[in-house]
Amino acid sequence: MFKIENKDTSSSARAGLLETAHGVIETPIFMPVGTIGTVKGIHQSELTEEIKAQIILGNTYHLFLRPGVDTLEKVGGLHKFIGWEKPMLTDSGGYQVYSLSGRRKIKEEGVKFASHIDGYKLLFTPENVMDIQRQIGADIIMAFDECTPYPCDYHYARRSMHMTHRWLKRCCERFDNTEPLYGYDQVLAPIVQGSTYKDLRKQSAEQIASFDRKINAIGGLSVGEPHEDMYAMTEVVCEVLPEEKPRYLMGVGTPDNILECIGLGIDMFDCVLPSRNARHGLLYTAEGIINIKNAKWREDFSLIDATSNAHTSRFHTKAYLHHLFRVKELLGPQIATIHNLSFYLWLVQEARTQIVNNTFYDWKNKIVPRLKTRL
Amino acid sequence: MFKIENKDTSSSARAGLLETAHGVIETPIFMPVGTIGTVKGIHQSELTEEIKAQIILGNTYHLFLRPGVDTLEKVGGLHKFIGWEKPMLTDSGGYQVYSLSGRRKIKEEGVKFASHIDGYKLLFTPENVMDIQRQIGADIIMAFDECTPYPCDYHYARRSMHMTHRWLKRCCERFDNTEPLYGYDQVLAPIVQGSTYKDLRKQSAEQIASFDRKINAIGGLSVGEPHEDMYAMTEVVCEVLPEEKPRYLMGVGTPDNILECIGLGIDMFDCVLPSRNARHGLLYTAEGIINIKNAKWREDFSLIDATSNAHTSRFHTKAYLHHLFRVKELLGPQIATIHNLSFYLWLVQEARTQIVNNTFYDWKNKIVPRLKTRL
Repeated sequence: MFKIENKDTSSSARAGLLETAHGVIETPIFMPVGTIGTVKGIHQSELTEEIKAQIILGNTYHLFLRPGVDTLEKVGGLHKFIGWEKPMLTDSGGYQVYSLSGRRKIKEEGVKFASHIDGYKLLFTPENVMDIQRQIGADIIMAFDECTPYPCDYHYARRSMHMTHRWLKRCCERFDNTEPLYGYDQVLAPIVQGSTYKDLRKQSAEQIASFDRKINAIGGLSVGEPHEDMYAMTEVVCEVLPEEKPRYLMGVGTPDNILECIGLGIDMFDCVLPSRNARHGLLYTAEGIINIKNAKWREDFSLIDATSNAHTSRFHTKAYLHHLFRVKELLGPQIATIHNLSFYLWLVQEARTQIVNNTFYDWKNKIVPRLKTRL
Repeated sequence: MFKIENKDTSSSARAGLLETAHGVIETPIFMPVGTIGTVKGIHQSELTEEIKAQIILGNTYHLFLRPGVDTLEKVGGLHKFIGWEKPMLTDSGGYQVYSLSGRRKIKEEGVKFASHIDGYKLLFTPENVMDIQRQIGADIIMAFDECTPYPCDYHYARRSMHMTHRWLKRCCERFDNTEPLYGYDQVLAPIVQGSTYKDLRKQSAEQIASFDRKINAIGGLSVGEPHEDMYAMTEVVCEVLPEEKPRYLMGVGTPDNILECIGLGIDMFDCVLPSRNARHGLLYTAEGIINIKNAKWREDFSLIDATSNAHTSRFHTKAYLHHLFRVKELLGPQIATIHNLSFYLWLVQEARTQIVNNTFYDWKNKIVPRLKTRL
């Protein structure tokens, strides 16, 4: 299922091919976030043609609430519902239950929570979250975990981690005893937790590895901790998780975060940052970060990004995009989102090329300071 | 510049070809409204590929305020600024000055008004509105007129109409004594006024015709009067305006309005209705009107419109579009706008085919009741 094509000799970066029921993904990869069955402001055709997305992410929590799993099952799953034929991954709802819903009660059984839409009381358990993700039908589905906040005291983090491990056992049992609903295979990925404590992270990674699933994930980072802590935890975990399986770092991050973590051995990323920041006029480029709302771009008739993979970024000028944001027109966020997601996909594709050529480490060290520059 | 290819023998409908500096337009035509340099939520590539727009409209008032004509002149006009190579038309700002700006003072010289953005005091005169439209650089530009509201008392309507005629004289003088700024020709279209009074409309049409410009327009309708009044005024005016020149009915209307007015001899239309209503979930189809927010579409997995010219409408289901509106995702209005504008362009294109085949009248009478049906 996962084939490593080349390893960088100066770092832990690797270029791989990840096979799924809906096609092969070239890793390292970035997965645009399509929360409720849509990447905000982006047509599905633009995901393939402009952004070159190979896999997108959906959120179990949101999809469970609307359109609801009955509707998804009737149409044959989320792929069919939204018109997306490539690979898809769903998270387990764990993160959203903690970040979005109101009152919640975490027990051994699962999490009782109130819908952020109508306050309706709901229960997520390891078992029903597996069933829900069977109904959604993503190629890769995630185990139900507790995502601890930052900061998190040691004792809470340890207790929570152990419960996440027990929940994982229940997830695997349910997953392994149920069949996919739409005639293609799904893969369950467990999640390493342990907050910012190296010993817990190591212990969790060992536990997760012992389940011997096809993909392993790292959760609970990028929740507010300093970047150095995130890198340290990622490094500890990558040393333990088996090399021959893809590693997915959830919710990370900035362009430089992504390159650093590729260097530590991460293969898969998702993050709302490029799309959310695009909607606020922040553009990522290989030369640095542009706040397109800044008056300095008002009469800059150069292209948004002449080197972009996206036609849109090579077609429109900075002045036009500045104007669209200034007059608060929908097309501004649309163009900026295409640009940023296309840039993220370019970044991981370029990282892959550098890994294959065994030039990744030097390239990364050269480009990372530029990526953080404010233009 | 305008060539009539065929006339319908059972109505006054005609199929024509209108030549402009940026290409030939097949008439009758509908012009999507691109107020501030963007058709809301629509990429320029979608205007050509999905919607099959042949000409779009810009609003002088909005463009004058932002990005401003200095910026537009620096980049070489609105076409270059927004990346649109096909024909373009700008209104004169007359309508917006009355409908959007705050305090305004109408005098013989022109209109003093306050910007709706910052309250800044501005003056539009027939002369400076010509200069502004030279700077914007549309292929077809409109004379500065007073657009009277509905209802409007007879004496005000008559006084206003005479002033619009005097303003037209000044517009023509300024226009004819200035050169285009970007190396291609522009055409000035005068506007018939006269509110809902047949004698005034007739008088105004005669006056406007006497200026012998290449395109003639009809303004001040679709401002709240009953449809029957709009048709009656359009008929009176079309009988007077020369047959060999294109007739543009400003701001009209619903799909059935458009077909009825094509039957009366109108060649060009613009209206915010299809795009504005799309953003509220109202879809126009050949079978009738769909309110996609209605719960009845929740699990309707049929295509939005299997017969649409737009790939988007033949790709996504009603259930998916319903979901997007329900969760208030940007992609909902985007898809609906593509659908509606594509439908309007299909409607005028189909009307043209029927005129060429001399079957327009029967076809129109058959389709009009369907167009008004609520599905």
